[in-house]
Amino acid sequence: MSASDQPTHELHPEESWEFLRSHEFGRIAFHLLDEVHIVPINYVVDDERLLFRTSEGSKLLGLKMNADVAFETDAIENEIATSVVIRGEAHELRGDAARMVEQLPLRPWVDTPKMRIVGIRVTEITGRRFDLARPWLRARVD
Amino acid sequence: MSASDQPTHELHPEESWEFLRSHEFGRIAFHLLDEVHIVPINYVVDDERLLFRTSEGSKLLGLKMNADVAFETDAIENEIATSVVIRGEAHELRGDAARMVEQLPLRPWVDTPKMRIVGIRVTEITGRRFDLARPWLRARVD
Repeated sequence: MSASDQPTHELHPEESWEFLRSHEFGRIAFHLLDEVHIVPINYVVDDERLLFRTSEGSKLLGLKMNADVAFETDAIENEIATSVVIRGEAHELRGDAARMVEQLPLRPWVDTPKMRIVGIRVTEITGRRFDLARPWLRARVD
Repeated sequence: MSASDQPTHELHPEESWEFLRSHEFGRIAFHLLDEVHIVPINYVVDDERLLFRTSEGSKLLGLKMNADVAFETDAIENEIATSVVIRGEAHELRGDAARMVEQLPLRPWVDTPKMRIVGIRVTEITGRRFDLARPWLRARVD
């Protein structure tokens, strides 16, 4: 099997950033004491940070106790799945830094109060594209 | 605002299980030493366990060192987002238990060798449905 026949291939970091910038929904994984938790968020990319809004709660509490986080966003179109994963450090923005976020298109999807703003400083970014081998779907169509 | 006007509502556990059973793609968050990691997986529900395939690598290594995991799957249709999160304990299946999985519709999307089978015993399941308030989308359409 030649390299181009491989069903999985790595994205260039710039392709991964472009994918992140062109989406707004993903999932953040974080520590809460000894546990790992995961929740969906909507986000915006500002320079090389991810920003999202949150309210007081276990997510903010967990991030304050341990800044280590991972985040994933993906899309499946036709027979191609793309997934971008980052790892980074989350910190709450305060004061002017938080107010500047008002300028960004960080739009709450759900109309509940989310007054706290968290930034993720990206330390690692990995993107992969998968050629999906889902023969049962093709079998249904044929 | 009455309860029915709330933009977020909790799913009944049985609705969450039904959502899990009717999807096959999600993301697992796991510990790798002191770090939290997240990767996309495809999965199947067997009774009240989630099963997925993996190969040797950091995911399997992380799960063996710390069984504590979280998993999320979601779907956005029209103005409704549904997200189901589980927490649980992951363990590799061996011998007969692994061979029995061959009977289940746990189909690898990507045609790379993934010979190890992991089960997640679910300890907690939470489902939420969000009525999305994305006025900028409506603004574009109107």
